[in-house]
Amino acid sequence: MQKITYLENPVYIESFAAVGGLEESRGPLGGSFDLIDKKDLFGMKTWERAEGEMGRLALNIALKKLSVSPDELNVLVAGDLQNQCVASSGGLFSFGIPFLGLYGACSTCTEGLLILASMLTSSKTYTRGACVTSSHNCAAERQFRTPIEYGGQRTPTAQWTATAAGAFVLSKSPSDIAISAFMPGKIIDGYTKDQSNMGAAMALSAFDTVSSFFSENDPEDYDLILTGDLGEVGSRILRDMLCEKGGAPGKKLASIHNDCGLMLYDRSFQDAHSGASGCGCSASVMASHILPLVRRGEIRRMLLLSTGALMSTSSVCQGENILGVAPLIRIEHMPRG
Amino acid sequence: MQKITYLENPVYIESFAAVGGLEESRGPLGGSFDLIDKKDLFGMKTWERAEGEMGRLALNIALKKLSVSPDELNVLVAGDLQNQCVASSGGLFSFGIPFLGLYGACSTCTEGLLILASMLTSSKTYTRGACVTSSHNCAAERQFRTPIEYGGQRTPTAQWTATAAGAFVLSKSPSDIAISAFMPGKIIDGYTKDQSNMGAAMALSAFDTVSSFFSENDPEDYDLILTGDLGEVGSRILRDMLCEKGGAPGKKLASIHNDCGLMLYDRSFQDAHSGASGCGCSASVMASHILPLVRRGEIRRMLLLSTGALMSTSSVCQGENILGVAPLIRIEHMPRG
Repeated sequence: MQKITYLENPVYIESFAAVGGLEESRGPLGGSFDLIDKKDLFGMKTWERAEGEMGRLALNIALKKLSVSPDELNVLVAGDLQNQCVASSGGLFSFGIPFLGLYGACSTCTEGLLILASMLTSSKTYTRGACVTSSHNCAAERQFRTPIEYGGQRTPTAQWTATAAGAFVLSKSPSDIAISAFMPGKIIDGYTKDQSNMGAAMALSAFDTVSSFFSENDPEDYDLILTGDLGEVGSRILRDMLCEKGGAPGKKLASIHNDCGLMLYDRSFQDAHSGASGCGCSASVMASHILPLVRRGEIRRMLLLSTGALMSTSSVCQGENILGVAPLIRIEHMPRG
Repeated sequence: MQKITYLENPVYIESFAAVGGLEESRGPLGGSFDLIDKKDLFGMKTWERAEGEMGRLALNIALKKLSVSPDELNVLVAGDLQNQCVASSGGLFSFGIPFLGLYGACSTCTEGLLILASMLTSSKTYTRGACVTSSHNCAAERQFRTPIEYGGQRTPTAQWTATAAGAFVLSKSPSDIAISAFMPGKIIDGYTKDQSNMGAAMALSAFDTVSSFFSENDPEDYDLILTGDLGEVGSRILRDMLCEKGGAPGKKLASIHNDCGLMLYDRSFQDAHSGASGCGCSASVMASHILPLVRRGEIRRMLLLSTGALMSTSSVCQGENILGVAPLIRIEHMPRG
């Protein structure tokens, strides 16, 4: 049974950082990233290592902002898009923090924050933990589609996997950004086999999660419903479904919806087609742009639903449908004093 | 900082089931499996689909034993060895249970039980959840090494990925098997690049986790330290390290150590080389053999540490070391009445 967990004692997002590459620097949020490498390599020899290094740098910066050492973290949850999530394990193992690996495709940022909130709440001995997620355009293209050197033509529904990472430090000590509720999403059939149309594949799962959540919550209490990477195509499907099936509350939800995949790039001159995607998309948009707005109280209460398309090259080649999943967390501004 | 979480209110393993293939049926635990398909296909057309179907069947049987419907589960955590964990998502999505995907390589069974125990503890509204993990020999061989049709020669340190799945239903309602503590493991460099010697790559992480746990616990209170799939090579390394570095407590720990990878097959006539491995190994050995012993009180208190080797074909081809991780849960017999 689909149940929402409301945390009596919320957990707090103490610190966060975003790291990105060339395209991310050219987009509207470029100036808000903590670190940019326009070569997309972050000093590494391979795109795959570069992705892990982005995660390491993001966590390092988030810890520095807080003047906290890795030793003071009780648990680290992380995931990425590479086969067997090797970017996360390879990039983060040098911290020596107890580690739990996740795979939620592009939904991993929300999934990780959800699981970390649960870990901190369930454990009396844990005081602080971190969540890191990353993606790299060149690593993802050659793993899921074709190496970028081939110069393959992309369809208009295709999205651009972000070269970015986000890191978040969570704690039980009160600060100005709280995670106050969470709800994992059901896996929903996307009814498509087109790996260049992830937005459509994931829109139904986002609709399912939003609908479930607002069956017992009032849309008027929320400033923002933020999905991870539905892009132009998926966002339009989600909003249409909310308006058509949700009555007046649905129209309100559609009006406060936005998508990280539509925020990261300026599609008027960047070749992002339907928008940004990837584990690093929602993580870096949250850490660069959204959480500062929550901290300042410009967003008082919001939902984050990173959306994941569950597929592999094998499952696509074997003719399976692409499945979607959309876990949810509620984030609130907590006025100080 | 490495901290153990002791659950004031333990969570309980209410029901469990193991599903396996031909080699599993020929091994010493074959008679204890709930379902066997000697064709290894479980009615599916591909090995990849067969793996997902094993997970589905295992959860179905575990629910049937309890006369509980999928609707009564609040959350499902699952993972497998396939790229992007498509066996779990594809096999389990029809249940319609809120889903969290994990990637911990062969450690996923313990990681899943740990995260599920945390989810149930942290949420007032959750009462029951399930954990499912699976692996399939033929799917794993063609993904990680070479398709079995090639008849590639295996080295003596190689292990045999189990064609098996295990499902576990956890609840807050007291029953006779409890999870009373957990501790995620650190990622530890295995100092090897040999993907046919996973046992050696994972032994150091198992040693790290066991040592940390017993820095504040007494070995005399435990009947069994069970690792997931160190096999012959990794188990010998772990025991040697415990004896050499751990003094008298270390020798005690080595004496109560066993490994699921050494239990699943009879290596005197099965071609398993160093032993069994895979997400399905520790899950099916627990669900077929070990948990019934705990239920009957023949094991009173034990630790389960499934061990994971964190690598991909890309990371191996790019010359990266294989990393290990070993999360831990404590399982106890709870006398009734």
